[in-house]
Amino acid sequence: MKEGGIGSEKIIRRKSDGTLEYQPDDLTIEEPLEIRVGGKVLATTMRTPGRDEELAAGFLVSEALIRQRAEITRISATHENTVVVEVAPGVKLKLRSAQRFGTISSSCGICGKTGIEAIRQNFPGIAATDVRIDVERLLAFPGRLRRQQGDFARTGGIHAAGIFDLNGNSQIVREDIGRHNAVDKVVGWALEADRIPLTGTVLLVSGRASFELTQKAVMAGIPVLAAVSAPSSLAVDLASQSGLTLVAFLRGDSMNVYTRPDRIKR
Amino acid sequence: MKEGGIGSEKIIRRKSDGTLEYQPDDLTIEEPLEIRVGGKVLATTMRTPGRDEELAAGFLVSEALIRQRAEITRISATHENTVVVEVAPGVKLKLRSAQRFGTISSSCGICGKTGIEAIRQNFPGIAATDVRIDVERLLAFPGRLRRQQGDFARTGGIHAAGIFDLNGNSQIVREDIGRHNAVDKVVGWALEADRIPLTGTVLLVSGRASFELTQKAVMAGIPVLAAVSAPSSLAVDLASQSGLTLVAFLRGDSMNVYTRPDRIKR
Repeated sequence: MKEGGIGSEKIIRRKSDGTLEYQPDDLTIEEPLEIRVGGKVLATTMRTPGRDEELAAGFLVSEALIRQRAEITRISATHENTVVVEVAPGVKLKLRSAQRFGTISSSCGICGKTGIEAIRQNFPGIAATDVRIDVERLLAFPGRLRRQQGDFARTGGIHAAGIFDLNGNSQIVREDIGRHNAVDKVVGWALEADRIPLTGTVLLVSGRASFELTQKAVMAGIPVLAAVSAPSSLAVDLASQSGLTLVAFLRGDSMNVYTRPDRIKR
Repeated sequence: MKEGGIGSEKIIRRKSDGTLEYQPDDLTIEEPLEIRVGGKVLATTMRTPGRDEELAAGFLVSEALIRQRAEITRISATHENTVVVEVAPGVKLKLRSAQRFGTISSSCGICGKTGIEAIRQNFPGIAATDVRIDVERLLAFPGRLRRQQGDFARTGGIHAAGIFDLNGNSQIVREDIGRHNAVDKVVGWALEADRIPLTGTVLLVSGRASFELTQKAVMAGIPVLAAVSAPSSLAVDLASQSGLTLVAFLRGDSMNVYTRPDRIKR
């Protein structure tokens, strides 16, 4: 396994003036990670190496398998590209839930519309009515996320997710070639800090708001999800039915608020 | 199932001058599609509805399950968000292959580095030495792809994939919220037209070149993969070992050529 998020490769670059040059180029590392629980392979994901324990922990929260730090005894990267999760005695993971909530897998029996209903049955939604985030603070988050994204500046090929509190303080930023992994890493960080549910926070993602990312925000108990790019139809449906505030196209001085605008303070 | 790729939602838009307005907003539709073969669920993917038969066909090619149109008797979207593939008598799908090549699934035992070796054992790679694409033609492809992307202009949240021939003619463009689905749709289109392997073509993708997209290009026999954004380390490894020409950061007047630059004609 290569260390860190960056590799290097000799390439031919064609410059705007038409000339060619040979030079090294930084690449975002992409490698598979196998997540094992109780001797079984729970999932395999293509990710940027680093923070694998957080990724595994966050995945378990996102899939509604784990809610508290105490349910996990140990998370360890045992050998190349594998992370093993040991759960506390007495904790039984409903592995069927993982299959139900999975969005891209060979075993996803129900997801999408039916999945929203399943999520609603299993999770109370975001009840908080006292969460208020200042609009000017929110508008400043994308620039702050970008400045903390060291790898993106070098490779141009990596997503980021960040958690901010309502006072505008950055809590954590994580990067990954897969946007779902970047979110799992910040959620896993929160689980390890025993901070699930992430009440009173905003999750910012550097790309689009898909169903899957919205699901992760809801499962982590985050009241406000903000995306730099577009949301999908199903993301808006899930946010609406879960009481999540969904902001997208958060760029420059403008944004779109899709659901629960009462949490945005002018 | 909603028809087409666009939905609409009432939102609050915060404009640059700080004022708010309520207005309808176009959204990219995201819904699950279940792909069934021989009574079994092979995969479920979150996709933009439309061209579901192409998506299923392309997925089978990408996973090395099908190589020729004649191996499929019928592909039909039987009811909401499900597509059923019937294979010709005597055709046995190596479903284990799908598991081996899968990149995000609960059953992916080997992928990444090991996956590259598996792909090499199962597929001869891109041998063509007589493929030459003019650099100026290549530079023009992203603009042409964008002009054919009707849905992107409206939603800003959809990926595209296009096939061009070496004379610069656009063969097909498909859009989807998932970039892997957009590629599966163009590959499925090619299978239905009995044009696999796609010799003498360039595959252009609107986003990054991941391992998964590179695998799809190799499986479809496409000699040149061009991406508007960054490649991953594993994408470069796979392209290098498969004899694929990989171009990325194809923007404006410049590009990076990572592998097999002999196919780019100055």
